[in-house]
Amino acid sequence: MGQVCFGIDIGGTEVKVGLFDTEGKLLNNWNFTTIRTGNGKDILKDAANFILDKMKETNLSKEDVLGVGVGIPGPVKDNGEVLELVNLGIGHFNIEEEMEEMTGLKVKAGNDANVAALGEMWMGGGKGYRSVALATLGTGVGGGIILNGTVLAGSNGAAGEIGHIFVNDKETSTCGCGKCGCLEQYASATGIVRLAKHILEEKEEPSSMRDYENLSAKDVFDCAKEGDKLALEVVEKACYYLGVAMAHIAQVIDPEVFVIGGGVSKAGEIITETTKKYYNNYVMDALKNKEFKLATLGNDAGIYGAAKLILA
Amino acid sequence: MGQVCFGIDIGGTEVKVGLFDTEGKLLNNWNFTTIRTGNGKDILKDAANFILDKMKETNLSKEDVLGVGVGIPGPVKDNGEVLELVNLGIGHFNIEEEMEEMTGLKVKAGNDANVAALGEMWMGGGKGYRSVALATLGTGVGGGIILNGTVLAGSNGAAGEIGHIFVNDKETSTCGCGKCGCLEQYASATGIVRLAKHILEEKEEPSSMRDYENLSAKDVFDCAKEGDKLALEVVEKACYYLGVAMAHIAQVIDPEVFVIGGGVSKAGEIITETTKKYYNNYVMDALKNKEFKLATLGNDAGIYGAAKLILA
Repeated sequence: MGQVCFGIDIGGTEVKVGLFDTEGKLLNNWNFTTIRTGNGKDILKDAANFILDKMKETNLSKEDVLGVGVGIPGPVKDNGEVLELVNLGIGHFNIEEEMEEMTGLKVKAGNDANVAALGEMWMGGGKGYRSVALATLGTGVGGGIILNGTVLAGSNGAAGEIGHIFVNDKETSTCGCGKCGCLEQYASATGIVRLAKHILEEKEEPSSMRDYENLSAKDVFDCAKEGDKLALEVVEKACYYLGVAMAHIAQVIDPEVFVIGGGVSKAGEIITETTKKYYNNYVMDALKNKEFKLATLGNDAGIYGAAKLILA
Repeated sequence: MGQVCFGIDIGGTEVKVGLFDTEGKLLNNWNFTTIRTGNGKDILKDAANFILDKMKETNLSKEDVLGVGVGIPGPVKDNGEVLELVNLGIGHFNIEEEMEEMTGLKVKAGNDANVAALGEMWMGGGKGYRSVALATLGTGVGGGIILNGTVLAGSNGAAGEIGHIFVNDKETSTCGCGKCGCLEQYASATGIVRLAKHILEEKEEPSSMRDYENLSAKDVFDCAKEGDKLALEVVEKACYYLGVAMAHIAQVIDPEVFVIGGGVSKAGEIITETTKKYYNNYVMDALKNKEFKLATLGNDAGIYGAAKLILA
């Protein structure tokens, strides 16, 4: 085995670890529950010890390991500085310096959504491209921007926070961020269900969406694919807002490709095609007809991108 | 005199040329009318010959000149490739290669608005910052994005085209780009006058704006500064749309500072302050209270930025 690197994706409930060769081949992967006792930083120590254990088990020396990439759920500056990880209960610190001390290995860190975008560029839906805008449609809407092969962190580590792009000045419900009319309120799984419930309340037409006791975003897409009129309206509305937000992104950074990931993207091409249709209405000619791809790495995008932080 | 470089700003009516030292001191500058006869590329040949003449006049050898930076009115890719310069009547070509051949000097080119942003970062309103979003409010609205000290060109050379960010879904008039509801329709000099005329037609209240035969954007701001209620409404509306567009920019790239330039920005802090107020309403907490500065280089931003292309 030649030189390798680790990619770690630290989440609030689970830590994922991947061991990669320099070509992006996943050689091995593991996951374990995020410990939530003691100091929040114990999570990092736990991950560092896990790496050291695995190196011992597989006879990897420090010379074999190019480094450890880490994705974490919060803003990270280019220099590894973290202001606060609310979800993990950790305050201001430099994650790269502290984990380098713990492991004796080179460490590079990034925000989890940005890192996932890097993973999708490297080995997923954005493979072959160097400038990628990723939208992750899950419980919320996350995003990541890759320019010329590099993660754009932003001056406060908040670049690519596309879930909170303002898209609707008529919204009266409040988003988790405190504003009204954020993309996340329409294009997340939660947002899609919310749109569906509104339409089902507003209109009296029959719809197979009415048959579900706990309607999910997947159910909405399933109904839409079978031609259900109200479900199609929901999909059009969610993709309209997503298309508008992507038009804003294009006018600012002009990426080569948009990649749509997250649980909602499992609905498939109905999302990329519908979003692209609206997108084209809201960009200038030079930006029309960009590629819209589905993410392909699923929950592994984070470990791929984390490893790529080391190889970039 | 130590080593120097030239910055050229090629416009549809005028070519500006500056000679700079490596610290950003403008040693000399000239301008001449853009020739509009013959092949569009004669404009480049004319500029190249001008540089060679000035080198001869001032006894500068090719070793003294680090290179020539050029800003042109159209999209330029990172590699110097130009798809088309509609205003100058030039088709697909590589401006850097052709001008290097003409001058025997290193040439770097960029879109004029992006290059102006680089100039403002280097020696103007964005001095001391490395990540700058510039909005140029002139006849239209242009823009430029600087990330980590480097111009963001975009995959089609169309990054930073913020004048065509879609901001109003109720607009029925068409923008020059063919869409409806672009920022340029509200925050350009033309857009501000248009907003003023609408308000003066809609409302019957007295306003000193009614006294002008050919109302200009400057007149609108002058009236607003004297407390004219309808003029203040116009300023609030223009800055609302500008604030919303800048909020979109921040959610995507999280710059350190926003710089507002162009003729309209001569109105001063009323623009930065009013825009910032609206901006703060449409970004997430981590992005609130960014710096908003006025551009300081005026029409020279282009030659400064062009020179900086060589020194970057």
